[in-house]
Amino acid sequence: MDKKDISPMDKIRIALIGYGYWGPNLLRNALGQPRFDVRCVAERDAARRDKLAAAYPDIALESDGLTAIARDDVDAVIIASPADTHFMLAKAALEQGKHVLAEKPMTTTVADGEALAELAEARGCVLMTDHTFLFTPSVRMIKSLYDDGKLGRLSYVDSTRINLGLFNMEANVLWDLAVHDLAILDFILNEEPVHMTVSSHAHLTEESPDLVHLTTYYPSGTMAHFNLSWLSPVKLRRMVFGGDEQMLIWDDLNNDEKIKIYNSGIKLREESQRHVATAEYRIGDISVPRVPTGEALAGVAAHFAAVIDGREESIMDGRRAVRIIRILERAQALLDENRRQIAAAKQ
Amino acid sequence: MDKKDISPMDKIRIALIGYGYWGPNLLRNALGQPRFDVRCVAERDAARRDKLAAAYPDIALESDGLTAIARDDVDAVIIASPADTHFMLAKAALEQGKHVLAEKPMTTTVADGEALAELAEARGCVLMTDHTFLFTPSVRMIKSLYDDGKLGRLSYVDSTRINLGLFNMEANVLWDLAVHDLAILDFILNEEPVHMTVSSHAHLTEESPDLVHLTTYYPSGTMAHFNLSWLSPVKLRRMVFGGDEQMLIWDDLNNDEKIKIYNSGIKLREESQRHVATAEYRIGDISVPRVPTGEALAGVAAHFAAVIDGREESIMDGRRAVRIIRILERAQALLDENRRQIAAAKQ
Amino acid sequence: MDKKDISPMDKIRIALIGYGYWGPNLLRNALGQPRFDVRCVAERDAARRDKLAAAYPDIALESDGLTAIARDDVDAVIIASPADTHFMLAKAALEQGKHVLAEKPMTTTVADGEALAELAEARGCVLMTDHTFLFTPSVRMIKSLYDDGKLGRLSYVDSTRINLGLFNMEANVLWDLAVHDLAILDFILNEEPVHMTVSSHAHLTEESPDLVHLTTYYPSGTMAHFNLSWLSPVKLRRMVFGGDEQMLIWDDLNNDEKIKIYNSGIKLREESQRHVATAEYRIGDISVPRVPTGEALAGVAAHFAAVIDGREESIMDGRRAVRIIRILERAQALLDENRRQIAAAKQ
Amino acid sequence: MDKKDISPMDKIRIALIGYGYWGPNLLRNALGQPRFDVRCVAERDAARRDKLAAAYPDIALESDGLTAIARDDVDAVIIASPADTHFMLAKAALEQGKHVLAEKPMTTTVADGEALAELAEARGCVLMTDHTFLFTPSVRMIKSLYDDGKLGRLSYVDSTRINLGLFNMEANVLWDLAVHDLAILDFILNEEPVHMTVSSHAHLTEESPDLVHLTTYYPSGTMAHFNLSWLSPVKLRRMVFGGDEQMLIWDDLNNDEKIKIYNSGIKLREESQRHVATAEYRIGDISVPRVPTGEALAGVAAHFAAVIDGREESIMDGRRAVRIIRILERAQALLDENRRQIAAAKQ
Repeated sequence: MDKKDISPMDKIRIALIGYGYWGPNLLRNALGQPRFDVRCVAERDAARRDKLAAAYPDIALESDGLTAIARDDVDAVIIASPADTHFMLAKAALEQGKHVLAEKPMTTTVADGEALAELAEARGCVLMTDHTFLFTPSVRMIKSLYDDGKLGRLSYVDSTRINLGLFNMEANVLWDLAVHDLAILDFILNEEPVHMTVSSHAHLTEESPDLVHLTTYYPSGTMAHFNLSWLSPVKLRRMVFGGDEQMLIWDDLNNDEKIKIYNSGIKLREESQRHVATAEYRIGDISVPRVPTGEALAGVAAHFAAVIDGREESIMDGRRAVRIIRILERAQALLDENRRQIAAAKQ
Repeated sequence: MDKKDISPMDKIRIALIGYGYWGPNLLRNALGQPRFDVRCVAERDAARRDKLAAAYPDIALESDGLTAIARDDVDAVIIASPADTHFMLAKAALEQGKHVLAEKPMTTTVADGEALAELAEARGCVLMTDHTFLFTPSVRMIKSLYDDGKLGRLSYVDSTRINLGLFNMEANVLWDLAVHDLAILDFILNEEPVHMTVSSHAHLTEESPDLVHLTTYYPSGTMAHFNLSWLSPVKLRRMVFGGDEQMLIWDDLNNDEKIKIYNSGIKLREESQRHVATAEYRIGDISVPRVPTGEALAGVAAHFAAVIDGREESIMDGRRAVRIIRILERAQALLDENRRQIAAAKQ
Repeated sequence: MDKKDISPMDKIRIALIGYGYWGPNLLRNALGQPRFDVRCVAERDAARRDKLAAAYPDIALESDGLTAIARDDVDAVIIASPADTHFMLAKAALEQGKHVLAEKPMTTTVADGEALAELAEARGCVLMTDHTFLFTPSVRMIKSLYDDGKLGRLSYVDSTRINLGLFNMEANVLWDLAVHDLAILDFILNEEPVHMTVSSHAHLTEESPDLVHLTTYYPSGTMAHFNLSWLSPVKLRRMVFGGDEQMLIWDDLNNDEKIKIYNSGIKLREESQRHVATAEYRIGDISVPRVPTGEALAGVAAHFAAVIDGREESIMDGRRAVRIIRILERAQALLDENRRQIAAAKQ
Repeated sequence: MDKKDISPMDKIRIALIGYGYWGPNLLRNALGQPRFDVRCVAERDAARRDKLAAAYPDIALESDGLTAIARDDVDAVIIASPADTHFMLAKAALEQGKHVLAEKPMTTTVADGEALAELAEARGCVLMTDHTFLFTPSVRMIKSLYDDGKLGRLSYVDSTRINLGLFNMEANVLWDLAVHDLAILDFILNEEPVHMTVSSHAHLTEESPDLVHLTTYYPSGTMAHFNLSWLSPVKLRRMVFGGDEQMLIWDDLNNDEKIKIYNSGIKLREESQRHVATAEYRIGDISVPRVPTGEALAGVAAHFAAVIDGREESIMDGRRAVRIIRILERAQALLDENRRQIAAAKQ
């Protein structure tokens, strides 16, 4: 079945699949999006369905995701079920000509992701993944500074995403935390890494790393390093963008000074290329732009609506989502190799 | 010539070789050490010798290091000349039965270092390297907390040693900055890594990295990661010690709260090994012990005197210094390999 | 009418008067308190009542506070209407033998407050004011440290409660911000100041200060200073407790390190009383106890229930609330005098 | 004796009186000033004179200040002896036509200060006081931003100058710490306060306050508050300048971000003067200008030379120094009154 066009006069009728940890936030923001008419929520757990019925008597409830997707009064589905069900549900939706917004990761393999991307293109449907950070004012501001040349050529990115705790029981620290960094870098640089290295440590269980250092190299010359950990006594969410014009630090936990732009850098003096002795430092002013506040998920919902309406180009379509899964797959392979090497070295 | 014993009644007569960047600090601390009698300074630069003559009329001056070493009134030499002269000068001193304290790195190759270590043992001379951090109250306190079991088994160490600027024109970021971290880890863990990974970036010149991420794995299970950079808009000197009893953060730039001990951690619940779902968090009190102040170099001089006198065991003898050079050599080889891989991947 | 006793078998039936800015928080916490049965909400605004009807179909709605108070099925009232209606409503409730929890300030004059306190005592009713900070884990921890002698004699308290903005249009910065500090100090010290000084500044309007410095002196020797401002470019919520045994800093905006205890101080050496030259400093360890999280309002509701049940002594009864209003009245008089002096000096 | 003119060809010949705590810094900076020729140091203590003789064999030494002042080869004197000797020494110097730079406070009474100011004017001599902060890049930058209108009208200044310890045994916290704030405010505002209030606390001895809150009101409408303490567990050096165009925070202990300029403020909306309800907030970008480094005392010496040479207008002449002493005298009187009131209230 091919996609039906939705007139700007009509609302986009939505089904939400899965009402777990993240579900209430998605529902609240879907309800808040003027283009959306939330018709149905599918949730396996009866107790959660009862709660939903009490709070939202006008929304239809289903116990099964496929039934919700198949409803005649549904134009688009938001998939918030466990990651390993995304492919099956999204495939069903796209085959019925319905638009899809899936939680990250879109699928658990590149092959599944590519199949969905092809299917979406064949049916003319929107296929989008909720990489929420792309919709934060901070990432938008960094992207815009970079595109405007304010940072210059990006020499390196150094990210620290560490805290105490295992919030995600389905994924290791790579799939749970690195996925954010990789989506942000993909969005800002619009490049795929040509080389990667990984080192890791497994504290809690031997099988699954809870501390990973991932380095990615991009064709344009940028090197990015990601420090990812569930074992840190303090929580840090901090990315440094080392441009050759200016440098930028995004400290996502500092509400008053989220972004700092340093007019600092190092260059070789013209007259003496190759001589370290004549490196030229510049330490200048710092500026701290005011970053607007606002919930990222509202932006995700608005973008999904706008892409369905044809008012905006997708910044996170199926092909792009696959690119991020491909990096995760490659990183996972390197990580497995790293674990083997460490084990061998210790014998 | 074999070492002459020095009576506790007599002072240890010192020659200082090299009076460059670090020389005044070494001289000041050598003069402040009650067991020392500084007899001679060797310095090639005439202007610096004139300055010394004015300030310290009682100290003999030589233009040549070997001449200073050969003086009859010299029992021990402090070598602060460029790294590539250390071997030649230390060898001469040890052959004449004189004790040696060399600036770090002790030598530029493992082979040279081993030759010196053997020679020192053969002559019964003290051979020591000035890894200054080992003499700071912070590192001493961390070592003592670790040895007393307060941190438990060390799961990981995460070090950040970054700033803006190339302070050392003779060395890349590995030999200039990582040498500190490696000496500190060697001192605390008393282990040699069994495996390493490196990733790097060269911003200023293609030949010499100014940003390196080094990971080392130790036989006891500890993983250590070192973030080393001359390209950071902010200066950080921060080491996290992730013990399974307590965690510790040493922030060397925070004079009021240099060391914080977090009574926090993650463990698997006994009843359910291997199930991530039952990880157990503990977030407890933090304690901030008062770290005494005091110049590290005074401690270096005192330790050199005490080891010569036989009052203390050396914490940084020739063998240990070689161990650190060996890690640097291995890291450098991995770094060269990493540069080749990146270059190949970009083609 | 005298108070009826409420059996522990029966729930305490509650009416909430006023459902404005703070109302939803009060209602949520009243509903969450197991001893309470929220029977009725009184709210003048029809739109808000409609919203309440939709969300809580089982709660009766009244447009008039006195009607709600008079209901037979109401044992206790929570008054969250504007400050100038508190007296009239609380008086009616107490006269009908009903327990009262009023938002701060309990009344706008000492005379009204005393009348309520007397009435409550005469009828045997509970009269409590919601000085919410007294129910935060931070204030409880400070109170307990102080009572246990861990801080020693309190030499001074230095509070900074500043931010940008006029959040309260009914009150000046004294009645809006100082009320918190004064309640906290009253709770911890259990003393009434014997002397006060005030200085102030009016930036926005000449009549109403938006920046006040208030100093209070207590019989036991403690001096407290409060820096209160709506004109600060940064927000600070910080109280220093200068004990002669230990000092404590409570930084309410620092979620990770809310309370720091400094084992530091100054004392005169015994042998040389009165000679400043022999003051003795002690700079010791810092400890950062883990402060439990939890909503203060839940504690307010629990305490109100427990005092009604006779299970707990009231920590904020009518007499105590009057004490705080009395300080505010005195401070206001000094503030008016200060404004006159400044105006006179400028002429 | 009247002042002799000093040709720009000739050096200004200097005598330094007093070589105590601050003396070495003054001597180093006097020696570093190209216009100065330091001829003589007067110091009562024989041991200190011996030390000086060894380090600076070319400088004449005197045991008596008046003898040094009277020397024929001295054109100007720097007075760094105890505060209560300043008047006698400066008077002698001025009467002999010699220029004077005195440590702060210039004198201990207004009367003495005025006598010196008159004498200096009568003899055509330079009389300057070392209020060192006026020569820091930070204060210069704030002055320049204020003069250029970047801050707008200054609504308030809020200063915090607190630490643990009694560094000055001759003075109370007012004369030791407030003197800095008052000189800075005098320099920036160029106004004398019309009204003041004081509150204080004496922890260590009943006679001498070690914690003072001083508020000063200026004719142009600015209110300034100074929090001064020797009893704080943490050290703060922080001044907030609340302009109605922009606000500025100077944190003198933050080397990386000493000055922050906040494009934030509150104004009444035009249409609704006097109604708090329509206050208008603006929270904008922050900028952190790079503050140059450099020793303030070098600037003091350079300015003293330049004023003697007639190349610069004095920014801290005798009249101005008197103004600051006058504020201190008035504040001291209020402080004594405050102490009496507290004592009376406690009885």
